[in-house]
Amino acid sequence: MTHDATEKTPPPAAAAGVADFSTSRLEAFSDGVFAIAITLLVLDLNVPDPGGLDGQSLASALAHQWPAYFAYLVSFLVIGIIWINHHAMCALARRVDRPTLFANLVLLLTVSVIPFPTRLLATYLTARHADAHTAAAVYAATMVAMSAAFSLLFLSFTRDARTLHTPIPAEAKRAARRRFGIGGVCYLAALGLAFVSPVAMLATHAVVALYYCFDQLAPARSTR
Amino acid sequence: MTHDATEKTPPPAAAAGVADFSTSRLEAFSDGVFAIAITLLVLDLNVPDPGGLDGQSLASALAHQWPAYFAYLVSFLVIGIIWINHHAMCALARRVDRPTLFANLVLLLTVSVIPFPTRLLATYLTARHADAHTAAAVYAATMVAMSAAFSLLFLSFTRDARTLHTPIPAEAKRAARRRFGIGGVCYLAALGLAFVSPVAMLATHAVVALYYCFDQLAPARSTR
Amino acid sequence: MTHDATEKTPPPAAAAGVADFSTSRLEAFSDGVFAIAITLLVLDLNVPDPGGLDGQSLASALAHQWPAYFAYLVSFLVIGIIWINHHAMCALARRVDRPTLFANLVLLLTVSVIPFPTRLLATYLTARHADAHTAAAVYAATMVAMSAAFSLLFLSFTRDARTLHTPIPAEAKRAARRRFGIGGVCYLAALGLAFVSPVAMLATHAVVALYYCFDQLAPARSTR
Amino acid sequence: MTHDATEKTPPPAAAAGVADFSTSRLEAFSDGVFAIAITLLVLDLNVPDPGGLDGQSLASALAHQWPAYFAYLVSFLVIGIIWINHHAMCALARRVDRPTLFANLVLLLTVSVIPFPTRLLATYLTARHADAHTAAAVYAATMVAMSAAFSLLFLSFTRDARTLHTPIPAEAKRAARRRFGIGGVCYLAALGLAFVSPVAMLATHAVVALYYCFDQLAPARSTR
Repeated sequence: MTHDATEKTPPPAAAAGVADFSTSRLEAFSDGVFAIAITLLVLDLNVPDPGGLDGQSLASALAHQWPAYFAYLVSFLVIGIIWINHHAMCALARRVDRPTLFANLVLLLTVSVIPFPTRLLATYLTARHADAHTAAAVYAATMVAMSAAFSLLFLSFTRDARTLHTPIPAEAKRAARRRFGIGGVCYLAALGLAFVSPVAMLATHAVVALYYCFDQLAPARSTR
Repeated sequence: MTHDATEKTPPPAAAAGVADFSTSRLEAFSDGVFAIAITLLVLDLNVPDPGGLDGQSLASALAHQWPAYFAYLVSFLVIGIIWINHHAMCALARRVDRPTLFANLVLLLTVSVIPFPTRLLATYLTARHADAHTAAAVYAATMVAMSAAFSLLFLSFTRDARTLHTPIPAEAKRAARRRFGIGGVCYLAALGLAFVSPVAMLATHAVVALYYCFDQLAPARSTR
Repeated sequence: MTHDATEKTPPPAAAAGVADFSTSRLEAFSDGVFAIAITLLVLDLNVPDPGGLDGQSLASALAHQWPAYFAYLVSFLVIGIIWINHHAMCALARRVDRPTLFANLVLLLTVSVIPFPTRLLATYLTARHADAHTAAAVYAATMVAMSAAFSLLFLSFTRDARTLHTPIPAEAKRAARRRFGIGGVCYLAALGLAFVSPVAMLATHAVVALYYCFDQLAPARSTR
Repeated sequence: MTHDATEKTPPPAAAAGVADFSTSRLEAFSDGVFAIAITLLVLDLNVPDPGGLDGQSLASALAHQWPAYFAYLVSFLVIGIIWINHHAMCALARRVDRPTLFANLVLLLTVSVIPFPTRLLATYLTARHADAHTAAAVYAATMVAMSAAFSLLFLSFTRDARTLHTPIPAEAKRAARRRFGIGGVCYLAALGLAFVSPVAMLATHAVVALYYCFDQLAPARSTR
């Protein structure tokens, strides 16, 4: 016997058939995926094999792994900031429909795959040129896909005013799209940079993440 | 001291002894398992060992791993769509009882095991024929089990009208069962296909997942 | 800006200082640990190395791994049933205090460690006698510790009637303790069995888990 | 169609623009990261390779791994206690703003990285002196960073009285800061101890965790 006072009853909006799902389970599932992806990154920090130190000290073996720490930090920051912005976006909606759930799934795909390019970059950042560029390009391409999926999800969330708490004015929508566009251009530029300097590519992503940390949806809200 | 206004008090249904559990913790635990299973898939994407490239470029070594990406994508899609449908199914119920919790646990078993056949298929998809067929059959059999567990859970959820928000009309129940039947036949066909073409088997699962993405429970609801 | 109507305000009980925490975050954190531990078990199912098959077919190599599947299934069942019973126990309480949070942490320690003895048993179940017995004893000892931690948590949850929804009558408490005692004896018997037959030990745990699947707290509730 | 009665509507505080986020998703995401980090620790408990026992019994090979169990236990305790205190801190706030979300992300970074220094220490605790000291220093430095991030988050949570349920009196704030200061000094002392005795360093962290288990925020509340 549980003692949960909030038995669920059908809300009026559902009866109207506007949008079928509450945002709470979308948030719970997404939070789970974000939390796991961000925490799995730590599995890519390798402990040097005691038998493989070859007279080297552990301190210098650890220092030698700086690309792994760098990639870890940037990916952690990227996933963390996406989470904050996902949080802010979900707060705009009252209910979501199946297409939005699917668009959210596409975003989660690009987020949950991030540990793979991170590991790849950590391993090849200081390898011979061609391979470092390949690894950097895979990393940057993942971020381009993630950025595109986030924009798509924003469009899906906001395409039907009836699913929102308050309609977003056209001007605010345009401002938000402009900012998504700027972000997209930065990510594409970082992809180009991957073929010049993998380290600069990674640093660019850290900067873009910090830029996104400041509220991208602010104009959409301040004008309401 | 916490500040949680919603202290839990026994709901009338609990007093009546109809069904003992709220759906919220079932959803929280299930969301956790779905989120973890879908995110653990990324651990099966291997970074090629720099020492084992043998003069090959990283790009070609990565391209060589296409079965791993293919299996990853299909399994991600399958788990994601099950989650969406699990979400829709839970929304029908007000409360759940122990048999339903147990049926849910059986579904979670078939979902949380998916990373294993995925890794198996990624490793053996391009191996010699007999082994590729074995790996494909294990993958397809897991999906058959998952499909059967989902149907079982649907029956358990809907067997007692008192645990639902609104009784489901007999006609709608029949329609839902028919659609589950069609799904089951597809999964069995895919299992047969595993012994002919593992790649076609995998592609079939992608198609079935997208088919299930469209609302299987729609008839059960539209007729209400 | 979020749109969360349920701003938290201090409940009367908190003002009275009876117990300081709501159960909701305890449940969320516990659900997370249960969900992760149960899903991490899949990492212990190894894909046979294609280079190590030695002419053997994949099918026979997989069949050879039966101890891993057996251990996986039993541990999945054990964690799943603990989750169901944890769920039922939390439903008795209105609020929890720090000692209960700490007792819960001890239970989570014994639950989250389960993948280790599971992997150990999967590896050594068919090894030479002494090592199989050692692995089985470690597995059974983990279950004894888990069972003891669960009983401790039950005592902590129920020691102060003011933290419960409804006081549990003394008779019902005695019945619950008797059943916990029976469970404890079974777990100790299984520990002894580890030194005779590791396979029988594992089968015993499957049976005990199914026994616990039936509501251990039923008497405590039916008499209310 | 879902049946979620609690459709979200904009709360007055949000309109006032005081703080933009509800604490519930911050708690959900943080609980996820805490739960995953604490459960991933188990992956660092290695099962001895049956082929590498060299005539040694499994029991003695397991006993030989005591540093791994010791590090596992201390890190489990540390993460568990941080979770309890994070829980207590979140309960003080009504809403959070972006800087607090970011400060929380920094804390989660230091928490989710803990499995790495734990694995490092487990591997090198009984290695030659210089390497054991290095591993111990990395472990202790992680804890210093975590402690600093927690203090920073406390300052961020409490810097604006309008985001709290009840303003915290200046005296109580001073008391809380004093206790954080004492904790910080302990962590720094443990860092120094790393270069003397790694085992004593680890034991110190167990003691500090148990000290923190007792309510650090009690004075901040009792005076309200």
